[in-house]
Order: sequence, then C-alpha cells, then structure tokens
Amino acid sequence: MTDRLAQQFSFLQEADRLKTVLRAGRLTDGSRRENSAEHSWHLALYAMVLADQAPADVDLSRVMRMLILHDLVEIDAGDVPIHAAGGTAHASDAQQAAEEAAAARIFGLLPPDQGAAFRALWDEFEANTTPDAIFAKSLDRVQPVMQNIANDGGSWKEYGVTVDQLDSRVGAKIRRGLPAVWDWVRLRALPLLP
Amino acid sequence: MTDRLAQQFSFLQEADRLKTVLRAGRLTDGSRRENSAEHSWHLALYAMVLADQAPADVDLSRVMRMLILHDLVEIDAGDVPIHAAGGTAHASDAQQAAEEAAAARIFGLLPPDQGAAFRALWDEFEANTTPDAIFAKSLDRVQPVMQNIANDGGSWKEYGVTVDQLDSRVGAKIRRGLPAVWDWVRLRALPLLP
Repeated sequence: MTDRLAQQFSFLQEADRLKTVLRAGRLTDGSRRENSAEHSWHLALYAMVLADQAPADVDLSRVMRMLILHDLVEIDAGDVPIHAAGGTAHASDAQQAAEEAAAARIFGLLPPDQGAAFRALWDEFEANTTPDAIFAKSLDRVQPVMQNIANDGGSWKEYGVTVDQLDSRVGAKIRRGLPAVWDWVRLRALPLLP
Repeated sequence: MTDRLAQQFSFLQEADRLKTVLRAGRLTDGSRRENSAEHSWHLALYAMVLADQAPADVDLSRVMRMLILHDLVEIDAGDVPIHAAGGTAHASDAQQAAEEAAAARIFGLLPPDQGAAFRALWDEFEANTTPDAIFAKSLDRVQPVMQNIANDGGSWKEYGVTVDQLDSRVGAKIRRGLPAVWDWVRLRALPLLP
C-alpha cells in the first residue's frame, strides 16, 4: 500500500499546480483572472445545480468526476482562450498533441489502474460524444458565459466577440447539453457583446 | 422554469465569491495562500484518488457533493485556521452561529427543494457522524497536512504547532476516515513540525 499511496500523493501534489493556471475570464467581482482549479470547482457546483436539466441517461457522479479532471492537462499545456485571436471551436493539432502528452505524464503519476480510469474519463470528455460528456462539456461552456454576463461583457469586449462567434464557439456546445438553458442565457448575453 | 433558472444562476454567481476567501495554508509552490474554492476542488480530487481507502458503505458521489459544498458558508463567515491562536478541533459558538446564518442565506438563494437538499448535505458534513461525512471530513483534514508537507512545514511553523496539537486537531479526524493514510502521513509530518 505504501507505494500506491506515494504515487497517489505524488499525483495530488502535482495537481496543485492547476491553481496557478490562469484563464482569460475574471471572477464575477472583476478583481482578478480565474484559475483553472477554482473554475473546475465551480463547474462541479454547476453540475449539481443544473442536474435537473440533464437527460435521464446522464450519470451526475461521472459528470462531476469528468469536470474535476478535465483541465489537469493545462498544467503542462496551458489554457487556450476560446475567443483568442485565431480561436475556433476546436483546439489546434499542436494544442491537442500537447494535451495528449500532458495527460500521459500527469495521469501516469497515479497507480496504473487508477491512471487508466482517469485517462478514460478525460478521453471521454474530450471526445464529447457520450451523454455524460455532452452534459459536462455544455457546463464547461456555459460557466464562462455567466462569468462574462456578471462582468458586463468581460472577455467578450477584450476579444471583440461577435454574435456569430458566440453562437459557433460556445452556443453550439451548450445547446447540445443544455438547450433550454442556452435560450435563457443567450438572451442575457447578446446585449453585452461589443 | 425561468424563475427556477434565475434562482439557480443567482446562487451560482454568489458562489463565485468563495474564490476570494483565503485560507491559512499556501499552494505547494509557496507562491500564495490557497483559496477555499480551489481547496474544495482539490478535495474532490482527493476523494476520487483515495476512494480505494473508503469503507464499502461510503458513497463517493455524495462525498464529492459534500466537499464541493462544504465551505460555501465561508463566503459570509470566513475561514477559521485550525491552528490559529486559541484554535481547537471545534469551532466556537459564535463561529457556528455565523456559519448557520450563512447557510440559511446562501442555500436560500436556490429553489426551495434544491436549497433544502444542499443544506441537508452541509448539515450532514458538519455533524460528522455518517460514513460519508466521516470520510469527507478526513479528506478535508488531510489535504492541508499534505500542503504543509510540500511546503516544508508551512503554516505549522507560522503557528508553532506541536505534535499534540497536530494529533488532536487534525489527526483524530483523519484517523476516523482514513486510518492507514494517517499512519503514513503522520510519519512524514512529524519531522517538519517546528
């Protein structure tokens, strides 16, 4: 057990570094940029609160585990703002390769059985095809929208985001998992676009 | 549904403030104090990783939900460092009253059915008598120990923590939920006490 615990705590200590990865968006009080660890916490809370919007075949426990894990690769690969110059709804090949390498290294710190299970959850989230992943991804996309609404437009103004960009880069993924929520949120987002 | 969503997003926006509540301990790189939102994320990850240490009657999904919620009251009531001057293993009556009022206000932002369910999870965590709460509480106590070990003693040195204080304020709760882990961690903590 000692070796297993040593591996587990090595992973948990490495994970601490996600608290220093900064995202484009700010806290709702505008005081500073959000980091990816607290963003992941917020997403798990979003999952709990918006669980009543999930289709019946969604397993909330798996969704929460996916959301807790989903950004760990940013420890090595960084966060790519979805509205940055040249941004699209999809990561570049180089970014995807960097994230794959990060996943291999970081999940590789765990005991092999656990590393494989965590990696499978991350792969499922990234592939975005199962009901759990689609719901999780829609939460990952709607939370920054709500942060920007609270911040009077926030990073949309910084990046000059258009309605088309909001709909294609963000709305399309939110609509897949949270269609009724997207209708509600979009109405409140549009007046704040630059 | 519109009113329900408005209440849910009001709660989720208020929850964002937990990212500005600072704890006594620091990140493992020592760069700054940890906030309670990213601490809660780290605990959910601890729960996933140390799930193989949980008794069979522990429901990991409930544990994760408890951990995501457990510090929200600090938005109003603040974080009380367990090793601060006059600190004990238990919160003061005044602190408990402040946390009860915070729970009423913050969970009260949600639709009533959801607010009651979240409040019940928080009450269960605080009472620390069910298998899920005991496991969750032991994670909440062991993570700061690991942060201090990574920080060469961290807040133990700042507060002049003794072996007896570590055992009574921290070890007793960890031992209830994670007895084998506490044996392993304690050996690594003792040489770093001041």
